[in-house]
Amino acid sequence: MGIQAFAAFEARQELHSHSYEPDPLGPRDAEIEVSHCGVCHTDISLIDDQFFGLSSYPLVPGHEVVGKIVARGADVSNFEVGDRVGAGWLCGSCGECEACRSGEPNLCPGAQGICAGRPGGFAERVRVDSRFLAAIPAGLESEQAAPLMCAGLTVFTPLDELAVQPGTRIGVVGIGGLGHLALQFAKAFGCEVTALSGSPTKSEEAARLGADHFALTSDAEAVQRLASSFDVLLVTADGDLPWNLYLSLLRPKGTLWLLGMPQQPLAVESILLMLPSRSIKGSIIGSPDQMQRMLEFAAKHGVRAWTEPMPMSDVNTAIDRVRKGEVRYRMVLTAG
Amino acid sequence: MGIQAFAAFEARQELHSHSYEPDPLGPRDAEIEVSHCGVCHTDISLIDDQFFGLSSYPLVPGHEVVGKIVARGADVSNFEVGDRVGAGWLCGSCGECEACRSGEPNLCPGAQGICAGRPGGFAERVRVDSRFLAAIPAGLESEQAAPLMCAGLTVFTPLDELAVQPGTRIGVVGIGGLGHLALQFAKAFGCEVTALSGSPTKSEEAARLGADHFALTSDAEAVQRLASSFDVLLVTADGDLPWNLYLSLLRPKGTLWLLGMPQQPLAVESILLMLPSRSIKGSIIGSPDQMQRMLEFAAKHGVRAWTEPMPMSDVNTAIDRVRKGEVRYRMVLTAG
Repeated sequence: MGIQAFAAFEARQELHSHSYEPDPLGPRDAEIEVSHCGVCHTDISLIDDQFFGLSSYPLVPGHEVVGKIVARGADVSNFEVGDRVGAGWLCGSCGECEACRSGEPNLCPGAQGICAGRPGGFAERVRVDSRFLAAIPAGLESEQAAPLMCAGLTVFTPLDELAVQPGTRIGVVGIGGLGHLALQFAKAFGCEVTALSGSPTKSEEAARLGADHFALTSDAEAVQRLASSFDVLLVTADGDLPWNLYLSLLRPKGTLWLLGMPQQPLAVESILLMLPSRSIKGSIIGSPDQMQRMLEFAAKHGVRAWTEPMPMSDVNTAIDRVRKGEVRYRMVLTAG
Repeated sequence: MGIQAFAAFEARQELHSHSYEPDPLGPRDAEIEVSHCGVCHTDISLIDDQFFGLSSYPLVPGHEVVGKIVARGADVSNFEVGDRVGAGWLCGSCGECEACRSGEPNLCPGAQGICAGRPGGFAERVRVDSRFLAAIPAGLESEQAAPLMCAGLTVFTPLDELAVQPGTRIGVVGIGGLGHLALQFAKAFGCEVTALSGSPTKSEEAARLGADHFALTSDAEAVQRLASSFDVLLVTADGDLPWNLYLSLLRPKGTLWLLGMPQQPLAVESILLMLPSRSIKGSIIGSPDQMQRMLEFAAKHGVRAWTEPMPMSDVNTAIDRVRKGEVRYRMVLTAG
């Protein structure tokens, strides 16, 4: 029985209905009936064939999936049919390398993405290796949980790895799909949180999302006043940003952590790294373990994606709103 | 009574004899009779006025000082007259900022250097705030200890802060004054050590210094074979290096640590940082606590600078050999 989905048939085009025959259900696989699927900017990049040449058409986007398991392979023991689960970008890895064996298949050189060569969640159902799924805690609504599967995990990972704690001074550059979750997570960790945005209209919302302070990135004096003030700067914006200025906002031993993916090389002054012993680091997504802990943390501490729901049949309208940057803060497609 | 020293009187010139009246001995100060002083590349940069505008003339270089205390201020209780001590670059800080209060005055924005506005160790005596001195362990010869005060501390700091341990895979780029000590320290920590150098003649010496492996940086294939192999890459060379190539030599979560100070901005590809979650970090010197621990570690584990001694009266010949890159691996001026 084929799976009904929405697919791009060539780069930069609208999606159309698409039915495909899934690969046989592997012993480790689970089939999920999709109830919700977030729309990530990476989906747009994939549709447009602007993501590392990973696009192949027909391309079914969608890697912020929530739904119920309707079938499982013989070797799946961690989930039952009927369980509500989430799937993110990661859906496969070599299983043999050091990263895989240390529980970080997201860092495997052979890591596989759910929309890159395999169909994603803009569909009625999707099949995913159950080792990369997470259980959705009871307290999380599916609509608010879906964006956590990619955007939430992406911003949780640096907070987890840097072991931030109450009092850690964090700046979040870019208040969008990622940034609005970063503010909430950082606040829930007890951090002192500053939002940096190019949109003055986001000041009030940033405060509601947990920001203690707000700085307009177009206000040079306001940004300068933040010099040497952050332990961590999470940069969720992409584009060609003033990297040396942002580095100068870090305290000694501070870390600038890239979460957007700038296309241009970063021209970094070594003295800004060396004298105060600052770091630049980056990551995408996180490990399956971090994914599960992130969801439980979000459920417990009230971290919720701010969503705009839309029926999956209106997928092209949804994508158009994401392209225009109109969504505050995450578009979520709903089944039916 | 004036202090006899050697000073540059203008940029890029030879040093000449120079007598100066020291500031009164402060309550925290110690006066050191210099027995040995290493010649660091930063001394050359200071002589040439190519170090952040910090040079003022007459300029007495020398910040790898070892000698005996011959006088001390009223509030000095951690050292006695006659103690053998070492002084490095750091000689002052604000004492009030977060870095100072957390024991890291080296990261104080107001940190002061011994040759930058204050006379250094190319002299018979030098006065330094005793809070920035370290005791030289009995097992270390002064000639071998002197280069540890700057070069040794500089390479010890990242190993200490990254908490490297037996099995950590470390590459050292550039086998000179810093690099030859980095190989020894890394080996003494039990690490798997690879030396990367542009000089094929250094292969055999690198092995004697503790390197398990050697790669010639001009051999593109040899370097490519090291892809994704290091946890830590200590870059002691300066200049405009192939940063993206070096980043690609790091394993997931690996750290490239800058110890030379490149003049040109580093044009870094974000994808090389983000996909494998790598870091770029940098530092200069280290804290007074790290300085003392570094000396004790060196004494215990047999880390010794390979030195070329020369009487201080031949200072210009010594500097000339450093300028020409002829010294293997550290020139040390001796009293008299």
